[in-house]
Amino acid sequence: MSDQADKPRRTVFFVSDRTGITAETLGHSLLTQFDGIEFRPVTVPFIGTKDKAESAARRINEAAREEGARPLVFSTLITDECRAIVKAADGMYLDFFDAFIGPLEKELGLTSSHAAGRAHGVFDAETYTRRIDAMNYALANDDGITTRHYDRAEVILVGVSRSGKTPTCLYLALHYGVYAANYPLTEDDLEDGKLPPGLDQHRKKLFGLTIDPSRLQDIRQERRPDSRYASIRQVNYEVREAEVLFRRYGVPFLNTTTSSVEEIATTVLHSAGLQRRFY
Amino acid sequence: MSDQADKPRRTVFFVSDRTGITAETLGHSLLTQFDGIEFRPVTVPFIGTKDKAESAARRINEAAREEGARPLVFSTLITDECRAIVKAADGMYLDFFDAFIGPLEKELGLTSSHAAGRAHGVFDAETYTRRIDAMNYALANDDGITTRHYDRAEVILVGVSRSGKTPTCLYLALHYGVYAANYPLTEDDLEDGKLPPGLDQHRKKLFGLTIDPSRLQDIRQERRPDSRYASIRQVNYEVREAEVLFRRYGVPFLNTTTSSVEEIATTVLHSAGLQRRFY
Repeated sequence: MSDQADKPRRTVFFVSDRTGITAETLGHSLLTQFDGIEFRPVTVPFIGTKDKAESAARRINEAAREEGARPLVFSTLITDECRAIVKAADGMYLDFFDAFIGPLEKELGLTSSHAAGRAHGVFDAETYTRRIDAMNYALANDDGITTRHYDRAEVILVGVSRSGKTPTCLYLALHYGVYAANYPLTEDDLEDGKLPPGLDQHRKKLFGLTIDPSRLQDIRQERRPDSRYASIRQVNYEVREAEVLFRRYGVPFLNTTTSSVEEIATTVLHSAGLQRRFY
Repeated sequence: MSDQADKPRRTVFFVSDRTGITAETLGHSLLTQFDGIEFRPVTVPFIGTKDKAESAARRINEAAREEGARPLVFSTLITDECRAIVKAADGMYLDFFDAFIGPLEKELGLTSSHAAGRAHGVFDAETYTRRIDAMNYALANDDGITTRHYDRAEVILVGVSRSGKTPTCLYLALHYGVYAANYPLTEDDLEDGKLPPGLDQHRKKLFGLTIDPSRLQDIRQERRPDSRYASIRQVNYEVREAEVLFRRYGVPFLNTTTSSVEEIATTVLHSAGLQRRFY
């Protein structure tokens, strides 16, 4: 038997009027605090009608019967009718709004609107357009394709090939509508020991990504096995020279070896003094 | 004076050991329930030391003085020392973990680990690689570049040009590590009234995106002003024929006109029966 099979199991429902992303994010944060139990996640989005709420309640009850323990139910349901139905099911109902809305109403001297799914729900053509534009910008300015549009960039990531630039740019664009370009430091750039001409004038927007050579070698090896590109010698050289360049020009940089995309993106935003936009 | 300026203002801090994404998600969901107040968000991530906690506390106190009202402080701080420092500042401290960890410990019969930043913090090379692979897959299989790798796709989005396929694919990849390809229905495809050969064999993986012609016209007009591509006649034709095709082949589809990327992605996952992966 595997380790997984030895652990007790518990089904976890994420129930929402809309996408369920808020319930998932919050529930996931809490569950990561518990080891020794295997959680089985089930997202039940778009619970907008009595019928759908009843169907969700049935699924919760079934899971309780099958597992012999009541499921955890993380909910961001807002409408009273749907909430009452899901709450009555045989689960442990954890209500994100209940816990905080009361104290906030008191503090702000306002009544909450009880409107469903505002966090990832209400469509706003302007913010949608901004995110899509930022994504198109990231795609068009990926991998140093061109440096002509750097005036428009809010941040320009620099680093050797496979240091994490593209996913970070796309994440910044899709999440925060940030215009992020990226430029891969080539061997020529590194030999010169100078910032490439297209970058030098945008020095304040630069942020460097670096990575441990051994991890970089693994990534490159996967991509082009046994190539010069993936050799430890080449990788060592590139990483060392890139860091020399960052230090020489005072470019802030982050070692991405053990960072998630979220952490890299957060560090970049923070360093660039950009406040996140919420969508 | 603008509407914004007439509203009372309140600063909101999102304070975290790590990225602050959980605190932001929670706070943002709650704050969208309050109209008539202008919130000024300030994210303070990576509070890992006493010094940094003290600096955060100072910023909270300054905002309280400047604004004449104590800021809201959404916190996911875990370590007791940092938490105590930030909690003592002149803000309304809303503690995400405090509210839920106790009841969960009791329900699960376990003690929580009190480990910081697990949700978006702990690096896991395997899931990182999966997300990056999925992103590279989305980029390599964007816009019908090739249909050769559709065996590997978990979902294939189809729709006319500018119906929202690329952002949805990239979001699915970066967030959930889902392998998503996309294929733009061309005029030839629409005239034939048949699924293109590369798609037909993967019918079960298909998901259609459609959009209101007038919105599509706006988007295309921005891209190629006064072109045939952006004409209302062309747009009407394409959208109508694409929907005919979806219905003919029983391809589930969504009108994306008023949907956020998150809503489209959630609907696609739900329809494809894919459970989200958490990273």
